[in-house]
Amino acid sequence: MTHLPIGFRFAGVSAGIKSKKNARDITLIVSDSPCVVAGVYTTNQIVAAPVVVSRTRTPSNEIRGIVVNSGNANACTGAKGYQDALRMCEFAAQSVSPAGELTGKQFVVMSTGVIGRFLPMEKIEAGIAAAAKELAWSETAFLNACDGILTTDIARKIADRSFSLHGRETHIVGMCKGAGMIGPKMATMLAILITDAPLYPAQAQRLLQSAANKSFNCISVEGHMSTNDSLVLLAALPTADHPALPAEDEEDFAIQLNSLAIELAKKIPDDGEGATHLIEIAIDGANSDHDADAIARSIALSNLVKTAITGGDPNWGRIVSAAGYAGVPIRPDLTALQINGLPLFERGEPLPFDASEISRSIKSRKLTRIDLQVGLGPGKAMHWTTDLNTEYVRFNSEYTT
Amino acid sequence: MTHLPIGFRFAGVSAGIKSKKNARDITLIVSDSPCVVAGVYTTNQIVAAPVVVSRTRTPSNEIRGIVVNSGNANACTGAKGYQDALRMCEFAAQSVSPAGELTGKQFVVMSTGVIGRFLPMEKIEAGIAAAAKELAWSETAFLNACDGILTTDIARKIADRSFSLHGRETHIVGMCKGAGMIGPKMATMLAILITDAPLYPAQAQRLLQSAANKSFNCISVEGHMSTNDSLVLLAALPTADHPALPAEDEEDFAIQLNSLAIELAKKIPDDGEGATHLIEIAIDGANSDHDADAIARSIALSNLVKTAITGGDPNWGRIVSAAGYAGVPIRPDLTALQINGLPLFERGEPLPFDASEISRSIKSRKLTRIDLQVGLGPGKAMHWTTDLNTEYVRFNSEYTT
Repeated sequence: MTHLPIGFRFAGVSAGIKSKKNARDITLIVSDSPCVVAGVYTTNQIVAAPVVVSRTRTPSNEIRGIVVNSGNANACTGAKGYQDALRMCEFAAQSVSPAGELTGKQFVVMSTGVIGRFLPMEKIEAGIAAAAKELAWSETAFLNACDGILTTDIARKIADRSFSLHGRETHIVGMCKGAGMIGPKMATMLAILITDAPLYPAQAQRLLQSAANKSFNCISVEGHMSTNDSLVLLAALPTADHPALPAEDEEDFAIQLNSLAIELAKKIPDDGEGATHLIEIAIDGANSDHDADAIARSIALSNLVKTAITGGDPNWGRIVSAAGYAGVPIRPDLTALQINGLPLFERGEPLPFDASEISRSIKSRKLTRIDLQVGLGPGKAMHWTTDLNTEYVRFNSEYTT
Repeated sequence: MTHLPIGFRFAGVSAGIKSKKNARDITLIVSDSPCVVAGVYTTNQIVAAPVVVSRTRTPSNEIRGIVVNSGNANACTGAKGYQDALRMCEFAAQSVSPAGELTGKQFVVMSTGVIGRFLPMEKIEAGIAAAAKELAWSETAFLNACDGILTTDIARKIADRSFSLHGRETHIVGMCKGAGMIGPKMATMLAILITDAPLYPAQAQRLLQSAANKSFNCISVEGHMSTNDSLVLLAALPTADHPALPAEDEEDFAIQLNSLAIELAKKIPDDGEGATHLIEIAIDGANSDHDADAIARSIALSNLVKTAITGGDPNWGRIVSAAGYAGVPIRPDLTALQINGLPLFERGEPLPFDASEISRSIKSRKLTRIDLQVGLGPGKAMHWTTDLNTEYVRFNSEYTT
């Protein structure tokens, strides 16, 4: 049972945008009163229309909801695409408040799916109207909303936290979608986090960016940064009765938010297209966290590392050499590598090891853990990625994303 | 018939280092008198022993030859690996001059193959001795030498040029090996260029670096930069009778050297593991050549672009979005894309196009040409890569490189 934040309603419906029959492809999330919103978006210069619209509206304390469609990214669609993204927000405002209390500007918008096709606006309009009628504060409505943002994901991706802050029960829920085009700085990744903790807009933005840096910015499937990545946090508006989190509670809240973001983010490579392994890369001993991060990414993006894990092959030379071209200094003479806790390489020289034991260990587990020491510095990083197998290639050769 | 440079002899023999029976795995190239050598090497910090040895010996005018083994990279092998690389040069000197006129320091050394295993020095020593006996200035000996440097390559990779400089017939021949681990700044790539044009060491180094920047540094298979990349140019030693190329001839020579280097470099992705397409990426309109190069690499390294070409899918959103995250400025509103000469995207908006026509065009040719305009600047670049198919993944999941 998901503990839903108080003050928000959810809906997810099928509008016929996705080719798969009856698949939910419109999600609507509405706050009962104006709420706080923060957002982190793709840094790709080729940016989809909904991102152009939404990033001007976050952070803010005047938002009433989020409208999302899947099945079409509304990316590379020029001026018409931009108008369509604005109209999605207007449809949402009209559907939620037929009397006209709300305006389109009080919504943020997200799209995910095929690039370069115009949105089917009739289907979108009908879908948003249908979703507005189904809005509810219920487990079922929440799960429908989670399904409405998925594309090629196999599994629904949700996480939740309930905890007490100053004696008050506080909730955070999150949903995301991943699958393909997951780059190191977020790719076709949509994530929505919702909390009933009251936050100021700047505070919400700071907490969200900090959570993103250790979670959604540390995952990859194939390193392709998309045009549509959006991570949004909805939070309660502070009131006299229920004021914004004071500094002394912010860290407790951040711990919960960060752990939820990491839990959610890891679900994306775990469900990467065709993935048979989730690869967890831990770097230690770099000159700085920034350097450690660059090394982790270099390993995570190596097709040769990924295919070795697919094959259960303890081909450590690929891992060590990927660290060597990350563009930041390492100490080859102090480099040490373990796979699933088994040592393979130390002080720049190979150790005798039982290749079949390591191979069995890789093959018998979904998670492969790589621990690489690159020197004696204080820098650490974690990164999560998938292996690369024939299923991924077949899928992406045949599918127009 | 290859026109061989005068003054050099060649050999390639099987020493039993590769697992495949009778495969040639030792190559020896010897100059009849001291010659000039220049070298360009991997920039990976994890660097193989033969690279450590050879890069201290180039550029120079005291070299007598090159000794190469395939089947074992002598990388990540610590102090013993370094001694083994030195010993390969000593074996070569002893085998070529049993009376002891030559020393190991007059040879450069290259290795390619599996990382992290010690060289089988008995086989290496016997192989070098056998190669020394077969040294010859002949087509057969040259082709044997070319075969001795290959690993998982399907095709032998050679190119040659003959041209007149100042009324004197001049020759350049080149051989290289590629296949896997081909990164944008050279990966497990070995290439040897040999000319009978007389060059000063610094002149040879400058000409070689310049040729590498437009050829071997513009190719990728999967972007993994190896520990062993070496590109070496052997040239005749200038003499009173046959002096170094004067400035007015240098450009003519550079044109020949560069075109040979590009011809040879393209053979590497063309024969990439499992490759069904050679992808040629031409960028125009960037702010500088450097920026254009970054954009070309970003597209070339995108698994989503590569798998789209494998599938004959005109999925132009993947190409345009890869340009957008290259980390250098582009003008989305002026971006235009053609695949095989057919326009798909212009001024930031999709054009109507016949997807099946483009798909047929991709599927019917080995070469896929991508032309991407990213603005109105003067910057241009070319890059060559492979598609990505299930054969590559199967190969690299099952093979310990």
